[in-house]
Order: sequence, then C-alpha cells, then structure tokens
Amino acid sequence: MDAAKANGPKKEQNQRPVIPGPTNPMVTPLLSDFYQFTMAYSYWKAAKHNERAVFDLYFRKNPFGGEYTIFAGLEECIRFIANFKFTAEEIAFIRASLPKTCEDGFYDYLRGIDCSDVEVHAVPEGSVAFPKVPLLIVEGPIAVVQLLETPILNLINYASLVSTNAARHRFVAGKSKLLLEFGLRRAQGPDGGIGASKYSYIGGFDATSNVEAGRLFGIPLRGTHSHAFVSSFMCKEGSESGCDMKASPPETREQYGEELEVKCRKFQRAAKAKLPAGCPPSPDEIVEKSLKSHDGSSTCEDFVSLAQTWLSKIKRSHSLHGIFGETNQSELAAFTSYALAFPNSFLALVDTYDVMRSGIPNFCAVALALNDLGYKAVGIRLDSGDLAYLSCEARKFFRTIEKELRVPDFGKMSITASNDLNEETLDALNKQGHEVDAFGIGTYLVTCYAQAALGCVFKLVEINNQPRIKLSEDVSKVSIPCRKRCFRLYGKEGYPLVDIMTGENEPPPKVSERILCRHPFSESKRAYVVPQRVEELLKCFWPGSTDKAREELPPLKDIRDRCIKQLELMRSDHMRRLNPTPYKVSVSAKLYDFIHFLWLNEAPVGELQ
Amino acid sequence: MDAAKANGPKKEQNQRPVIPGPTNPMVTPLLSDFYQFTMAYSYWKAAKHNERAVFDLYFRKNPFGGEYTIFAGLEECIRFIANFKFTAEEIAFIRASLPKTCEDGFYDYLRGIDCSDVEVHAVPEGSVAFPKVPLLIVEGPIAVVQLLETPILNLINYASLVSTNAARHRFVAGKSKLLLEFGLRRAQGPDGGIGASKYSYIGGFDATSNVEAGRLFGIPLRGTHSHAFVSSFMCKEGSESGCDMKASPPETREQYGEELEVKCRKFQRAAKAKLPAGCPPSPDEIVEKSLKSHDGSSTCEDFVSLAQTWLSKIKRSHSLHGIFGETNQSELAAFTSYALAFPNSFLALVDTYDVMRSGIPNFCAVALALNDLGYKAVGIRLDSGDLAYLSCEARKFFRTIEKELRVPDFGKMSITASNDLNEETLDALNKQGHEVDAFGIGTYLVTCYAQAALGCVFKLVEINNQPRIKLSEDVSKVSIPCRKRCFRLYGKEGYPLVDIMTGENEPPPKVSERILCRHPFSESKRAYVVPQRVEELLKCFWPGSTDKAREELPPLKDIRDRCIKQLELMRSDHMRRLNPTPYKVSVSAKLYDFIHFLWLNEAPVGELQ
Repeated sequence: MDAAKANGPKKEQNQRPVIPGPTNPMVTPLLSDFYQFTMAYSYWKAAKHNERAVFDLYFRKNPFGGEYTIFAGLEECIRFIANFKFTAEEIAFIRASLPKTCEDGFYDYLRGIDCSDVEVHAVPEGSVAFPKVPLLIVEGPIAVVQLLETPILNLINYASLVSTNAARHRFVAGKSKLLLEFGLRRAQGPDGGIGASKYSYIGGFDATSNVEAGRLFGIPLRGTHSHAFVSSFMCKEGSESGCDMKASPPETREQYGEELEVKCRKFQRAAKAKLPAGCPPSPDEIVEKSLKSHDGSSTCEDFVSLAQTWLSKIKRSHSLHGIFGETNQSELAAFTSYALAFPNSFLALVDTYDVMRSGIPNFCAVALALNDLGYKAVGIRLDSGDLAYLSCEARKFFRTIEKELRVPDFGKMSITASNDLNEETLDALNKQGHEVDAFGIGTYLVTCYAQAALGCVFKLVEINNQPRIKLSEDVSKVSIPCRKRCFRLYGKEGYPLVDIMTGENEPPPKVSERILCRHPFSESKRAYVVPQRVEELLKCFWPGSTDKAREELPPLKDIRDRCIKQLELMRSDHMRRLNPTPYKVSVSAKLYDFIHFLWLNEAPVGELQ
Repeated sequence: MDAAKANGPKKEQNQRPVIPGPTNPMVTPLLSDFYQFTMAYSYWKAAKHNERAVFDLYFRKNPFGGEYTIFAGLEECIRFIANFKFTAEEIAFIRASLPKTCEDGFYDYLRGIDCSDVEVHAVPEGSVAFPKVPLLIVEGPIAVVQLLETPILNLINYASLVSTNAARHRFVAGKSKLLLEFGLRRAQGPDGGIGASKYSYIGGFDATSNVEAGRLFGIPLRGTHSHAFVSSFMCKEGSESGCDMKASPPETREQYGEELEVKCRKFQRAAKAKLPAGCPPSPDEIVEKSLKSHDGSSTCEDFVSLAQTWLSKIKRSHSLHGIFGETNQSELAAFTSYALAFPNSFLALVDTYDVMRSGIPNFCAVALALNDLGYKAVGIRLDSGDLAYLSCEARKFFRTIEKELRVPDFGKMSITASNDLNEETLDALNKQGHEVDAFGIGTYLVTCYAQAALGCVFKLVEINNQPRIKLSEDVSKVSIPCRKRCFRLYGKEGYPLVDIMTGENEPPPKVSERILCRHPFSESKRAYVVPQRVEELLKCFWPGSTDKAREELPPLKDIRDRCIKQLELMRSDHMRRLNPTPYKVSVSAKLYDFIHFLWLNEAPVGELQ
C-alpha cells in the first residue's frame, strides 16, 4: 500500500485490482430517486455540479430498542461506486423521463461521469456503530455524490439492520448455540432473502437454508426435510379411501352421507390394518432397502426391518414402556427413506404427527438402526408446540436410550428448534429451560419484524469548504456540520468508552492525554477522558483522485469475525436487552463551539404572536 | 385460445410465446431452501420423485389487522416456472453442497428437469383474496414442485403484502389524492425497493421516485429536490466564516474561544450583510439568469430579480403584511435556480428553514415570476412539522395571493406532504382536516412496517390422488385436503358474499341455485346462499403437459385496474380500518364432511395421564 502511495495517484489507480459490480445486477445508477436526476440537472444548469460537497451517512437511533448497531453493506457500496457509470440505454431513459426542455449538454455530462473524483471514507464493515457518528463520509462533485445517495442508503440501511438483528439474536441465544437463518420464503423479495442470509451471517449466524446465498458468499448450508416430505409417504393399504370425492359425486347431502359412511368403514378397516405393531412401513414406498455400513465392510439388506426391530425394542424397553403406543408408520417410512438417502447426516423433523408418541420413537428407531451400521444420526427438528417442554422430553428420551440400550452419546443428539422464533421467544425459552442446540430463525430475523427499517440519512455537511448544518425543531435531527474525523476512545479495562468527532484538522486524541468529550447538543453533558487506546473509525475505502491508500475489501468471513470481536469488546450493560446503557457519542470542544455558533447564526429568531 | 386448445398440447406448447425470465436475474432455481434439494434427492433415491403431487399456496390470516389481501407476484412466478432449468454451474454447486455419498444419477435427473409437466392454476394477479383459499394450486412431480416452493413463496409473500399495504393506504387517503411511493432508500435491499414500487403501483399508488422501477415497469416517476439542494446554495458574502476550523487549530480551548469570537464577529457582519431586503439571492450562484417565456415570444433577462420583485410585492401586500419578514435568501436562490431548470414543473420543498416565514413566501415569489412568463408552478412539498396545520396555512397563503394579486388558480397550488407517513398518520390528518393533495410515502409502505411479513404457506393436499391433510393443535393451521375448485359467490347488490371451495369433481355452484356454504372447521357455522353471480377464482396460468388454454399474463396497468375494481366491489364493512367484518370463506358440504372424516382418521386419540 505504502509503495503504491509513493507512486502517486495515477499509477496507483492503474494498479488497483478490478472491483466487481454489486452482487445484484439490478443495482445500477438508475436505482435512485428521480429527484437526484432533477437536482443533477439543476446543478448542471446552474453550473454548480462540480462544487465540492461532503456528505455524512449516519443513523440517528439504534434499532430494536437497543444501544448498538452493526454497520454492514459497505462492500456492496464500494462495488457500486467503483463501477458507477451510465450506459447509453440508461441515459436514454433519463432523457425520456426528464422534461423535453432539458438541454442536451446534460446528457453528455451524465455520459462522462464516474466516481474517479469521489472520495469515500467509511467505518469497516462489521463494526459496532452508534448514532450520529458517520458510517460513510462521501466527498465529491455535488451532482455525482447526490446521484449516489439513494443506492448507498438502500445498500446500507437494510444490511445494517439485519446484521444488528442477527447479532441481537446471537446475544440472546448465547455463544454455544448453532444459529441457522431460515427466512428466504418470508423475506422481502428475492434479494431481501439473499441479503438477509449474507448479513445474518455477518451478525453471527452460522449457516443458512438459502442455497443461492451459499453459492454467492460461501455461507454454510443447512436443511433436511419438511412436513410435506413426511406427508408424502403413506400406508398403501389405506389407498382405497383416497380422494375418490372425484368419483361420481352424490347429488344430495343425504346421499353423500351414505357414501361417506361406506367410505368411513373402508377407511377404518384400512386404518386398523395399518395399526398393529409390525405393520411394514409402507413397504411399497421404499424400493431400495439395503444400506452399506459406514466403513463399507458389510451391507444391511433390509434397513427398513432393522428400524422396525429397533422400534419394537424401544417400546419394550423398561423405562420407555408405555410412553408411546403405535407410532405413525408413514412417518417411520419417511424417516427410513431419508436415512437411506443421507445415512451420515440423518436429521428428522419429528412433529408432523405427534412429537413424543410418534416422531421421537420413530427417529430413535432409525437412528439406532443407523448406529448398528456405524453411522451417527445428527438429531431432530421441532417446528411446533412447546419447544421448551418438548426439547426437554426429547432429551430425556435420548438419555434413556443411551443408558438403557447402552448407546454412547445418544443422549447428546442435536435438537434443532424452529417456528416463528425471535428475540423474545429465545429469551422465554432460556427462562423456562430448554435442551435446544440449534435454532432455525426465519421471518422475524430476515424481515426485522420488530423494526422493519433503519433510518440512515445522508446529509450535506460541507460545500466548497463551507460548513452546512441542517436545523430542525427536533434536536435529534440537527446535523453535525463540517468534514470530520471520528475516534473511538478505549478505557483501562479495554472497553470502548466514547466515540468522539473532531473537525478534520484538529489534532487527534492521543493515548494518555486528557480530552474533553462534549455531547453535541446538550451543553451540560461533557466528560474528560484519558484514553488508553485511540482508534480512528473511518478509513479510506475509495480514494478517488487522491493519493490515499485504499483499504481492501475483506472477505465475508473476516467481516463476520470483526463483528463478533467488536461485540465481545463492548461493556455488557450496553448490550443487555432490558434498559441498556446508551454508549456515549461526543464531539470535541472545538467542534461543539462551532456547531452552536453555526446553529445560532442559521436559526431564525422566533416571534411569539 | 380455443383454436390452440383444439390442436392439442404439443402444438400449443410450440405456439406459446416465449415468457421472459424473472425481473431479478438472481431468481434462479438455487434461490431455494437447501432442504428442497435434500428432499429431492431422497425422493429420487426412493424412486418417488415423479409421484404426482398437488400443493396449495395460501395464507392463513389477512395482514395489518384487516380483512382482505391483494394477491400479487404471479407474473414473476410464472416467469420463473416458464424458465425453470438448472445450469451446469448450478448443478455443480448442488453436487458440492450435498454429501459425497449422493449418487451421480441424481445430478443427471436435475439436469433434465423443467416445468413442462407442472400445472399451475392461480387467482389472477391484483385480485382481492382471503385466508385459506388457494392463491396458487401447483401440481406436478413431487420433487420438482417442492423445488419451486421456496422461490414461489418468496415471490408472492412480499408482493402481496406490499400491494395490500398500498391498497390500505389508498383506502385511507381517498380516491382523489395522488399517492407517491418514495421508499427506495429505506427498502429491504435493492429489489425490496424495486418490488415495492411495482406492487405499490398495483395496490393503487400513482407514481414512484424509483427510476429503475420506472424503467422496468413503466411506472410514472416523481421527484423534485431535497433539503441538500437548498442547503447547497448560500450567500457568498458569508463565505469567510466557513469551515476554517481547518486553518491552524488553536492549542487550547481558551485560544479557540478567542478565535471563535473573532469568527463570530466576522460571521455576524456577513449575516447582517445578507439580511437586508433586496440582498441579491446569492447572485454568484446563478450564472444564467434569463428565462424564455412559455410561449417563446419573449425573454426575461433577469429572472432572479423578477422573483425578488415579487417577493417584495407579496411582503407589502395588504393581507400578507407582517406574516413574514426576511426570507432565507439562499433558499430563494435554490428555488429560483430550480425554476430556471424546470420552468414547467416547478415544485419546491419549502421546509428547509421555516415553512411559513421563508419557504412559502420564497416559493410564491418564484411561482409568480414564472406566472409572469406564462408558466404554471406545480406546488410545494412539506417534509416536516405539523402537516395538517402547515398545509392549511399554505393554502390560505396561496388563496390570499390568488385574491389579492389576482392570479387565477394560484389557490389551487398542489401541496405534497411526506415525512414518515403511514395509515395512522393519514387517518389523523383526515380527522384534523388538511389541504394536502399528494402524499409521498416511504418507509412504512415499502417495509410494511406495521407487519413486515405475510405468512403464505405451501401445503401438500394430494399425492397420487390420495388426499393429504396436515393436522395441528392450532385449528387455523389445519390444511384443507384434496385438489379443489374455488368460487366467489356474488349477491343481489353485486357484492361478493362468500368464497367457497369444493372438491375438484363436484358440480360447481350455479347462479340462482341454493348452495350450503360451511365453515371449513366450525360445525355450527354454515349458511345457504343463492348466488346471483358465480366467479371461478383460479385459472390455468401454466398448463404443463395438459391441453388447457394458458391465461396470458396481463400488463401491469391491467393488473392495477383489476385491483382497483375488485376493491370497489367489496362491501364497505369489510374494508374499514376499525373492526372490519371478516369476509366469509367456506367449503362445500361434501368437502366439509371429507375434511372431518380425514381429520378423525389421522388425528391420534389422546390419552390423559
């Protein structure tokens, strides 16, 4: 980097590796608000388009009632910026959308622009971030920077929101649990799903069900089978009772009543035939019943019967006797079939019929049959009911089998829980006590149901070296003017104490040197800090035409690691779910004075009438 | 269509026009849950993959506490299905993700599959829909249909949710208001934004700010300028007080204090210089001040001065005298500049400084100057504060000008309001009384903040002609078995009375013939209906290998029209926000009996211990 820097901007630019475009090809310069184009035209018409502007991107309030936010979405922004260029087709569309009175020169101008003169400083992706401190500082010709506003906000708002949501779920679940993102079907559109997978992973999830996200980002994939899989198996004996609603329907309800009675009798016979112990689990369904042992040394010719045998054994076993009667045989057929397909990774969804009276015994029968052949079943998934209670009962069942049938480690069988889980339900499960090892979380995670949007804003803080402040009757909406530098100050115990913003040319805070940190808007809130460590928060991720070194975009795994480490560094009272302590965000004394000086000068003096 | 039908399936298939792929290129067969692939492998291994399965896609509960839902997302589903085919790269990824023990034949099988043997019936997009009634019925080889499950749910859940949200906003706002979707920056990812634009339009919005959505779908675009645009203009006289925090920073706070004092004096001088009436509005900022009249017959050489003159006139006018003093001159410069760029569509954001004391008078000055040249200003946008009060005050101001300065129609100036609007705030505005003509709605609309997910599910209802029912302790989660037909029955007044599901081969309800409609799960809830009109709800949108005619995918405008018309047909008590009456969804007597017959046979008999 330093060598490249020494060579000056031009050469460095040539040496830069090509940054690929955004993951979603729909992210183009047109993915923007129309007013960015009308403004661009106005700037151009007023010959203001190249005025040098500085914008801060920040949020005003942490989401989910918490006191921290994970910053994410930077890589996609930089990819977008690096490849920002209008195609002829895009320009044609803009031309068709703007009034005919707009001058041709503007489209020539659009044709020529890119981000080679835009400079982006940003907090690294995966960082813990706080309100008001800029996540991104974007400097460049005002028309270009404003064209970037909407796509950048779009790419950061949701990404940061989901990462934060994931981190919060991780916090409640605890470090030892496996967290699986299962939200694709309920996500807000296709790349709402893909984004959720990526950013949940950054926030501390372990895997996703989303295959495309696995392919794009290398996130581990998880998933076994659904209720439909189980329902698709059935005792063939019952078949005559099938959908023959299709056969000549009766003309009257009375007639139908008779028909139904006949049908019921048939079905009951079939059902009876299905029930006795030893009834083969839909043998027609399973064509290939043989399974080689794990070490390949032998072959079990009838794995189906082996599972059956184990089911009988469990039923007769001392401690489990009477816990269940006849299990659902089509479920057993489904489990057996799944185990034959995936003998090394058998995980069964056990709640299609009845968890304790069918799902768990059937699972155990198949798991024990696998065990005979040297395979180790993975475990079960619960997708309904009282997850705390069921997980404890399942664990008891597994432990009893381990003890009674002397199967080492059977009690440690993994239990996955899913079904509309969120922070609250995880918390409730913890309080009740549970035996769940892995949580599959969907809707509430990916849609950020508890708060579906993060309100990042993009505010002009300087133009042509002139500070700009945006006033508002709501103090929390007043922007902090000037191009700034931002630092995190760490205390003796290694915790971050406070973030401080200074003017760009102020001397930065120094280790062991006392510095006054002021609340940006509240006169009385201030504190002296003697930092033990000073971390500059924003780095140059896109140097534009400057000779600054460009920070490399780290791989996803590193972003995730950064996030986990940064969260571990935080003092616990900032992190707790109930009444967390706000982390302090401050400005230097000098910046404080400057803000209030500008404020007084810009604010109109009221007149009471 | 009928001719094609007569030619039989093969020929018709050849004649079908090519259906393009999904709008978002990320929608591929891999945009699915991993378990769909593990199940597909299991089915294939058990030679069950080609068993004929029927799945219903439906939701269980209307969103937003309402009693209706708009169905959307169908076109994208059909595009996906029509082009469903794995690429070699995709198959390679699946192979790498599944255990090594999986047999090669499976990948050959994947390579060969498409949806030529899948049949899709669906409710037309833009229809009003209700819980439990299938929106889609998908029939085909079980392994293929399950691979479709996740992408289809993903494409429908959010689409229907946003369309419904938009329709609800429209309902509260009233027919006469212009509704603008402004949500891109806060949407859940790039195509969360694009989807929101498309589906808000279907639900009754008039336009979007999202340029890419405009390009993709032909949705009208709206937008003018932001606060940053206004802030970027300034009196050059004030420049010496600019960000010279950059110049040699003082070493101590005391020193800085002095420096600040000096700076303040400078700034106050500048500010004073800026304040007196007649101070040119940042004249340096506006290079080209001339504007041709609308009819091209004359040219105003100094449009800036013209606006200035009007500002003075307004200030001196009888009724407006004393309402405002000095307006913000940089705001006036911004407005003037915007008007010079867009003389035919001048719409100004008037709340950057102070709506009534600066924004409105400045706007009026520019609008009156435009009026002199034969142009008609469009109006203003309010983005903060008490929108009801400010809109009324603005209206009064406009009417006063119309009257006092005799400018016809000036009082009808359009007022757009934005700033975190949602159903509740629209309702509150209505109750307070307001003068807003157009609403710009973002975050709450596009993220469906009030309820961020719709819970559509995809349930197996039949396999190999055998009915399947999914039981649950929660009655609302019990699925309705069998391949069905669904009808909407209309009453004398033209309102829909009830939706009814029947078995596939039952005789359909007939006009003027009494039919018993039963609640699917509640014995005592039933009613006889004599329909005046019977509408079959699901149509064949993808005939697969059958010789059914394929419904064409209508253009977006038609979908939107359908939605608006269907909503108008509904009885008002189903639509109201507070305690709406649930619309009735029923099953035929025959289907009712069949459901309960299956239910009793499948449900385990409990044992109290």
